[in-house]
Amino acid sequence: MTDPMQLAADFLETCRVRVDAELDRSIAQSSASDRLQQAMRYSVLGGGKRIRPALCLAAARAVGQSSEQALVPACAVELIHAYSLIHDDLPAMDDDELRRGRPTAHIAFDEATAILAGDALQALAFDRLADAPATSAPARLAMVRALARASGHGGMVGGQAIDLESVGKTLTLAELETMHRHKTGALIEASVTLGALTAPAVSETALASLATYAKALGLAFQVQDDLLDIEGDTEVIGKPQGSDVARAKPTFPALLGIAGAREHLATLLSGALDSLRDFGPEADPLRAMADYVVARSH
Amino acid sequence: MTDPMQLAADFLETCRVRVDAELDRSIAQSSASDRLQQAMRYSVLGGGKRIRPALCLAAARAVGQSSEQALVPACAVELIHAYSLIHDDLPAMDDDELRRGRPTAHIAFDEATAILAGDALQALAFDRLADAPATSAPARLAMVRALARASGHGGMVGGQAIDLESVGKTLTLAELETMHRHKTGALIEASVTLGALTAPAVSETALASLATYAKALGLAFQVQDDLLDIEGDTEVIGKPQGSDVARAKPTFPALLGIAGAREHLATLLSGALDSLRDFGPEADPLRAMADYVVARSH
Repeated sequence: MTDPMQLAADFLETCRVRVDAELDRSIAQSSASDRLQQAMRYSVLGGGKRIRPALCLAAARAVGQSSEQALVPACAVELIHAYSLIHDDLPAMDDDELRRGRPTAHIAFDEATAILAGDALQALAFDRLADAPATSAPARLAMVRALARASGHGGMVGGQAIDLESVGKTLTLAELETMHRHKTGALIEASVTLGALTAPAVSETALASLATYAKALGLAFQVQDDLLDIEGDTEVIGKPQGSDVARAKPTFPALLGIAGAREHLATLLSGALDSLRDFGPEADPLRAMADYVVARSH
Repeated sequence: MTDPMQLAADFLETCRVRVDAELDRSIAQSSASDRLQQAMRYSVLGGGKRIRPALCLAAARAVGQSSEQALVPACAVELIHAYSLIHDDLPAMDDDELRRGRPTAHIAFDEATAILAGDALQALAFDRLADAPATSAPARLAMVRALARASGHGGMVGGQAIDLESVGKTLTLAELETMHRHKTGALIEASVTLGALTAPAVSETALASLATYAKALGLAFQVQDDLLDIEGDTEVIGKPQGSDVARAKPTFPALLGIAGAREHLATLLSGALDSLRDFGPEADPLRAMADYVVARSH
């Protein structure tokens, strides 16, 4: 069997190239303001590992679809992710000046343009998704619904609100997990769900197994993120190392210790892999992505 | 024939009651953060004439549908409008402290919560629209697409970007109209389009006539807004009178003079009404809305 990390790296790279080309096409859509469009392009095409789109394409594979059929949904998820990063970085939010080693959007442009670029990227995600050519109208509607739910006040934005309310507070493990299930987990789960919805007749059982996979993976992603914030190298992770600690943000290592967080990570990984037990080799890209998320260094 | 202003006032009031009840239900959807949900509720249910939802319901009537069938699309448009007001009022944008006679969202809550409430309302609009029960899946997808286009960088958000870039500049009439066609016109047009799309077999001709009506009405709305900013009473319009002039924002009266702006308004109104000439009494609510928009005092 191929080394799973190599498989994940190859898969991610193939996805990245195709996703970036599709994102580029999406943003080229006629805009009323050049400056606004530049800010959107700067934020969306300024690097990024494209983990969410890759998960979407990997989930499509797991239900027997080609990557091509999931390309537009994959990009829609990434557009939502990109908008959320722009808004999270704003002075009134996390007040970050650096993202992926480059000035954040409100530094490179200005605050008003950054707010608007985020707003426009969210609209563009739904615009593209409604047009997704490869799937039936009911499937596309199910995707719009899943993405809107995952990104709204019951999902990602709600999680960001909990996060802001939690700074300086001591959270229990359950509270910390609730925050992350919303803040990052919901969109990761939507990535997998949208990929699975490209199959004309995906079973409820398969959807449920994939959702279980995605829930575990989403939390694992966050645990690893917290560990990297403590142990990582600023140059590699693209943001100042230790920035969570500096802000007194609640983290898994703070609650569980570093060894405890690593153990939690291993449990989540094996749970994610276990939920794929009824799938054959068609789910290997999803398995490789789980290994990658846990072992990544940035 | 009934007095058109009275007809419009009655129609608006009937719409307002039904739309507010539906908006209330929409926002009650499970949220991850109480404070975020409160900010959404504060912003959406804090008054407002509901002109866009009323246009959506009136357009549905014009194509032979009941108001009931257009209620969810009407609310989706209003959710987009509400989110745009929250973000427009932010310190980095128009920096307004008063909206509809009450503190703006970032004053009543805080800036981060206001940004997130806007983001969540945008997601909620697409969530609700994808669920709109009364229409077919292809029609709902067409609505998602129309609303996303109208609100993104090729529409409303693009117009807001042009607006920010135009402060202190002298615009030509054509440039001013381009700005407003995007900033407010696109969403007003979408209101009418979504209403028309509730009809299972609306003709391209009817859609085109209604779009012409909406384009003229959208501009008329803005011309009247500019006139009210000069001539209106702060207490009635709910924001400081003369605030556009104070910011050196380009306006129709500044370009055309007050008499010229009034004349332009009359031309736009007759154009809007003329585009409805092939419709019978089923379009009377749309005709009344046009009269109302032009004659309104706030």
